[in-house]
Amino acid sequence: MKKIINQAQNVVPEMVQGFVRAHHEKIQQVPETFVLKQKEIAKQVALISGGGSGHEPAHAGFLGSGMLQAAVCGQVFTSPTPDQIFEGIKAVDQGQGVVMVVKNYSGDIMNFDMAKDLAEMEDIKVGTVVVDDDIAVEDSTYTQGRRGVAGTILVHKILGAAARKGATVEELVALGEKVVKNLKTIGVALTGATVPEVGKAGFVLADDEIEFGVGIHGEPGYKREKIKPSKEMAEELVSKLKDAFQWSKGEQFAILINGLGGTPLMEQYIFYNDALNLLNEEDIEVSFSKVGNYMTSLEMAGLSVTMLKIEDDWIKALNEEVDTVAW
Amino acid sequence: MKKIINQAQNVVPEMVQGFVRAHHEKIQQVPETFVLKQKEIAKQVALISGGGSGHEPAHAGFLGSGMLQAAVCGQVFTSPTPDQIFEGIKAVDQGQGVVMVVKNYSGDIMNFDMAKDLAEMEDIKVGTVVVDDDIAVEDSTYTQGRRGVAGTILVHKILGAAARKGATVEELVALGEKVVKNLKTIGVALTGATVPEVGKAGFVLADDEIEFGVGIHGEPGYKREKIKPSKEMAEELVSKLKDAFQWSKGEQFAILINGLGGTPLMEQYIFYNDALNLLNEEDIEVSFSKVGNYMTSLEMAGLSVTMLKIEDDWIKALNEEVDTVAW
Repeated sequence: MKKIINQAQNVVPEMVQGFVRAHHEKIQQVPETFVLKQKEIAKQVALISGGGSGHEPAHAGFLGSGMLQAAVCGQVFTSPTPDQIFEGIKAVDQGQGVVMVVKNYSGDIMNFDMAKDLAEMEDIKVGTVVVDDDIAVEDSTYTQGRRGVAGTILVHKILGAAARKGATVEELVALGEKVVKNLKTIGVALTGATVPEVGKAGFVLADDEIEFGVGIHGEPGYKREKIKPSKEMAEELVSKLKDAFQWSKGEQFAILINGLGGTPLMEQYIFYNDALNLLNEEDIEVSFSKVGNYMTSLEMAGLSVTMLKIEDDWIKALNEEVDTVAW
Repeated sequence: MKKIINQAQNVVPEMVQGFVRAHHEKIQQVPETFVLKQKEIAKQVALISGGGSGHEPAHAGFLGSGMLQAAVCGQVFTSPTPDQIFEGIKAVDQGQGVVMVVKNYSGDIMNFDMAKDLAEMEDIKVGTVVVDDDIAVEDSTYTQGRRGVAGTILVHKILGAAARKGATVEELVALGEKVVKNLKTIGVALTGATVPEVGKAGFVLADDEIEFGVGIHGEPGYKREKIKPSKEMAEELVSKLKDAFQWSKGEQFAILINGLGGTPLMEQYIFYNDALNLLNEEDIEVSFSKVGNYMTSLEMAGLSVTMLKIEDDWIKALNEEVDTVAW
């Protein structure tokens, strides 16, 4: 394992400390927790997200007005505990309640749910939006149903815009469910990633091998193949999205090409170009594009494609200015 | 070589096409060139930069009011040709002249200089700022003197702020020279990177080996060692910066931790935390921090530390809002 770290068991506290010190003008750490929060929060329903670490810049990179108010950082690839999530809820509730955006992993679902119970006992209103955008496989290593992956960032952005405008907990939960229903992601990995405390890669691919549908914790995908040109990878992934959406000509989508950590931007833009060619052939209208590392899996090489079928004013919400570290 | 590309000789045109399509609301391609420009340029001295590709998001990610007006994309790790640079100059000159920010590599120096001559024959005023911030070695593979690396981004930002406020070509060149004099960078690599057309890594490090002072094209550094904790890597690099600056207690600096492409943000923030601890021990005041992938070397794992000794209102310039893809 070749990483720029100190002791493997300290990577999360040291990363959190580094993050807070680098961005202290907009971010605060809730004392004695691994909860990060937006420094000055307006009177609004607060959005909170989080999960295991190792997906940076998710989620703390999206703290700021118009996106998240709190991000709870678990150990690497491990759900944060209910008490940490509860501290996050208390730290950002402005009296109007909190909405939690939770990726669909059994541990996260359970712990966020327990935190919600704790908060409700203190009369804080809490809503939950579960994101399960990964169409690769069903019932994976850590998941009942579909996994939650990079599309979560688009949920943060659209709910964040609505929360800033004054939406209630109920309205945000309804909006979140509507966004998630229209949100699908699928990825391809070129290498595995190594959790520091484990010390060896979660899975290993041969020098000429790729795997379609791998999860952001290295969960198995649906197919291993020899490395192929970007165009053919795009064909594979876009065809899966087409099957899942059953889209029609002229429909409007947002697209996010998300680097998994070890794949440079050059490759991500080449892939985006290929994916867009395929979508153009399908007469799909792409009204919003984003390319970069947003929901990573440590140093895993590979990328995912997220598509969001647009309803209402979601393009406007996606384009609204925010002052986050990473959007 | 495991990359998400099509034909190796097409990576730059396909990446450029992807970039323009993803960001067409703010970026334009100058027709029949690999020059990208800010879409709508105000009446000001235009800033132009560029160089070999493979350093994304540099330089096109920094196009926008308050930073660059044009970015010229050469082949991977290869200077753009004088005619391409000349097209860039013509495309962004608003009648008030152009300032070129050039990283100190022999090929770039020669080609940007020839482009300047071509422009002056058409009565376009052109100034040049050469960035040579890498303190690792002198007279490297492609360089007379010191190499230009990640600190270039801070030059773009400070000159961009001044250009937007109406500085002249002469003022910008003088400011640029002053910034460069106060700017130093040094890095460490954990892996090599593979130029697509070459097909194998420029250099190879053993599984337990790191190299200090490697250049952003894989040029040799000054020392290979066994992998060590982040703190010790920070000690090595910060001590080199201390020697180079000969700083005194209380002096004010900006710091940029720049990921080289394959190193995740988690490690960059851990390293930043260690570096900041050392600077605090030295009573150095860090007034501006930035952490992330800004000047990469394809998929190379590793990072660099840039420090800028602050004069005048440079912190204000660094903090000014810009609407770029990547700052």
